[in-house]
Amino acid sequence: MNYRLVLQLVGKVLFIAALLMLPAIAVAIIYRDGSLDALLSGMLVTVLIGAAFTLVSHPKNTNLRSRDGFAIVALCWIVLGLCGAIPFYLSGYFGSYVNCVFETVSGFTTTGATILENVEIIPKGLLFWRSFTHWIGGMGILVLTLALIPQMGSRSMHLLRAESTGPSPDKLVPRIAKSAKVLYALYVVLTVLEALVLLLCGLTPFDALTHSFSTAGTGGFSSYGLSVGAFNKPVVEIVVSVFMLLFSVNFYIYFRLLQKEWLAPVKNAETRVFFTVVAAATVLIALNIRTLYAGFGEALRYAFFQVSAIISTTGFCTQDFNLWPVFSKVLLLALMVVGGCAGSTAGGVKVMRIIILCKGAWREILRTVHPHGVQVIRLDGHAVDEELLNSVAVFFATYVMVGICALMVVSLSAPDFTTAVTSVLACLTNTGPGLNAVGPMGNFNLFSPVGKIALTACMLIGRLDVYPILMFFSPAAWRRY
Amino acid sequence: MNYRLVLQLVGKVLFIAALLMLPAIAVAIIYRDGSLDALLSGMLVTVLIGAAFTLVSHPKNTNLRSRDGFAIVALCWIVLGLCGAIPFYLSGYFGSYVNCVFETVSGFTTTGATILENVEIIPKGLLFWRSFTHWIGGMGILVLTLALIPQMGSRSMHLLRAESTGPSPDKLVPRIAKSAKVLYALYVVLTVLEALVLLLCGLTPFDALTHSFSTAGTGGFSSYGLSVGAFNKPVVEIVVSVFMLLFSVNFYIYFRLLQKEWLAPVKNAETRVFFTVVAAATVLIALNIRTLYAGFGEALRYAFFQVSAIISTTGFCTQDFNLWPVFSKVLLLALMVVGGCAGSTAGGVKVMRIIILCKGAWREILRTVHPHGVQVIRLDGHAVDEELLNSVAVFFATYVMVGICALMVVSLSAPDFTTAVTSVLACLTNTGPGLNAVGPMGNFNLFSPVGKIALTACMLIGRLDVYPILMFFSPAAWRRY
Repeated sequence: MNYRLVLQLVGKVLFIAALLMLPAIAVAIIYRDGSLDALLSGMLVTVLIGAAFTLVSHPKNTNLRSRDGFAIVALCWIVLGLCGAIPFYLSGYFGSYVNCVFETVSGFTTTGATILENVEIIPKGLLFWRSFTHWIGGMGILVLTLALIPQMGSRSMHLLRAESTGPSPDKLVPRIAKSAKVLYALYVVLTVLEALVLLLCGLTPFDALTHSFSTAGTGGFSSYGLSVGAFNKPVVEIVVSVFMLLFSVNFYIYFRLLQKEWLAPVKNAETRVFFTVVAAATVLIALNIRTLYAGFGEALRYAFFQVSAIISTTGFCTQDFNLWPVFSKVLLLALMVVGGCAGSTAGGVKVMRIIILCKGAWREILRTVHPHGVQVIRLDGHAVDEELLNSVAVFFATYVMVGICALMVVSLSAPDFTTAVTSVLACLTNTGPGLNAVGPMGNFNLFSPVGKIALTACMLIGRLDVYPILMFFSPAAWRRY
Repeated sequence: MNYRLVLQLVGKVLFIAALLMLPAIAVAIIYRDGSLDALLSGMLVTVLIGAAFTLVSHPKNTNLRSRDGFAIVALCWIVLGLCGAIPFYLSGYFGSYVNCVFETVSGFTTTGATILENVEIIPKGLLFWRSFTHWIGGMGILVLTLALIPQMGSRSMHLLRAESTGPSPDKLVPRIAKSAKVLYALYVVLTVLEALVLLLCGLTPFDALTHSFSTAGTGGFSSYGLSVGAFNKPVVEIVVSVFMLLFSVNFYIYFRLLQKEWLAPVKNAETRVFFTVVAAATVLIALNIRTLYAGFGEALRYAFFQVSAIISTTGFCTQDFNLWPVFSKVLLLALMVVGGCAGSTAGGVKVMRIIILCKGAWREILRTVHPHGVQVIRLDGHAVDEELLNSVAVFFATYVMVGICALMVVSLSAPDFTTAVTSVLACLTNTGPGLNAVGPMGNFNLFSPVGKIALTACMLIGRLDVYPILMFFSPAAWRRY
């Protein structure tokens, strides 16, 4: 690893992070809620650590290899979690530093799992920072997966290249810098749009902004214990649902729409499957919960919101789905694992990978019938190469095995099996709420510090598609050069 | 599919199945327990169905393709389940025919999940038949995976060929017929040995035999509600533990030992990993449950038995592990998924596949560090080819996805999330008991008929390594030729 260069770049990211605390500081000043000191001190410490990193590092060579790229990405998320937690820690509302790091990593990884027992007593400046971390994390992951990773030559994360394996190379994203700029613009415009619509629906500017940030990052932090259910307005729920789904679609689709390819969403298999799953799951859950509510219409309202919130891995809620029948709970957990589309801010395994796995499984079945037949897997008219299928299948297996290992650690301080399993699922898929003690009305404060650290690691591993974090377990990654 | 030939061969297997009911009929005569009529009628119906199949089918060509092989295998297990259930149904002790099929398939697939609320009231002839189905199923799967499958040219099931990918082809198993004979002999000798040792330990001949059958097939049916715990003798527990582990080792190892390759078990990575996992899990669970018992020694006794019973996917128990701490329960479920070694009577994913997946995951991590490096996965000194890794990874993903689909159906009639998840795990891995309502002291009678059918399908899918059953969903498999 090129330690000096890695340190220098992480230092620079910390400077940016410190700047990004300014809006929260403005909120603290406007509301005079007593969180100004904590935020200012947090910003100062972040700047100092950033400066220390930059001063210590004098890169002798600026040769950036693939492993350095992944190390920078992983370290950025970790160090942002450690520094972003300082305002929370200094405010005294969040308890131990481990709690604060859990909450901040949950923010930056757009998970939305919280250790707070009572959100309403937290000062607005801190709540703003908490939701803003979602927004920053969401943008980070978009730029990472759409602009940077495809350039880094990683076999394991080149999911998006499946889109461009056709004879004509994709002309829409010719250069990193340009595509990153378009992404920033798209992301900002969509967020502002949601905030405006929510304002029109009667939300306060603070609520409209924080909930738009949480939606954009598909995070899920809310300033209310009842989450979006606190507003109790169907129109707000529909707006939030629609935007959660919009932020779970591959941003390439928006690029294409900008190029006036109006049929791009329909032509794309991943988008089609995604919306079909959302529709089917909504109807199934509505049928399953209809006896709990005043009619099928109301059931449909809650089902649609919850399905959007879970498959987008946002984790907002309007009803305590922990009280729903087992079938609905299982279906929601399955959607959590599926997650959104590749190249979005959503977490989970991603619809694209599930499609490829299903096609791979189907081919194995066909091979039982025709052992000597040659079947090529096709997606959107292009052949999926064997290497991609292989890496997706190994990715999925690794994902499951990491989950099982984390489950062992978490189970040491979990009150029951359901809580243990769903807390790991909720963190690894970057969704947020699980079932039982970590259900929509619960929180993650019940775990031991070791359990919280394991779940924090799950959020990072899930967010960065497993390997950049696991890389640190390989001695080869630590070798200097 | 060559329907006529498939029917003819399945018909022949039914004749054999009818013959295999004779020992149970002898038991019914000896104990005069009133089950003679049910067993005799069952045998008669099985013979008649077998005769009908044979009469209807006049194979025009005897050309047996791969798909026919898999269809025969899958149909044999299904038809055996349907016919073997007749004595249970006629006896009236098991309730609906769906219940009886569940119990019989659970027997033939060596799962050991039961719908019986009170085992002790069942006549001895039926209990003997119930345990004997484990023994038949265990032998069936051994012959299938070790002697037949490697000849059928299936890519998805050629797990065992990993053993023989080296430069020198394996000289131990030159012909199917010979290897099948050696397998029968080994299987019978080990079963008889266990029965004799259990007799010496003071068990009645009936108990010694039925529990030996259940151990040999790694099934888990017991004639007592408390399972092996009913004997409450440490020496019996140790004997059963040791034999459960012996039946979970790849039978190739015994071939090699017969050839005086005394170091074969040590040289084989799968066997090493298997016993290391057993030892580590035993110690971890003993530490976790020690406060529940009179000391670490007693905790170790129960932990060792339960670890052996679960990783071998037998599913016997001596203690109600549903009352153990969450960590122990999670670890046991993880062992259930791992299962025994390939080429044994045990179920689960198999240690060999887990090793290959771990090596595949580790290589992906190394590729993050060295994106252009060429890393070959090695096992026991041989290179694992990419195709094998690919098929193992896709197998694992299919296994998980099938489990999730089954979970949806089962959750419709499950009382809680834990019961739903663990019932599917217990059936798919062919283990038997799960947690909560399907825990060691529970049973599967609480599910709706649809839920029971889904779980029955899980047992078949798990037992036959997924594809031979899923093959029936492909229209190509049904095409005549």
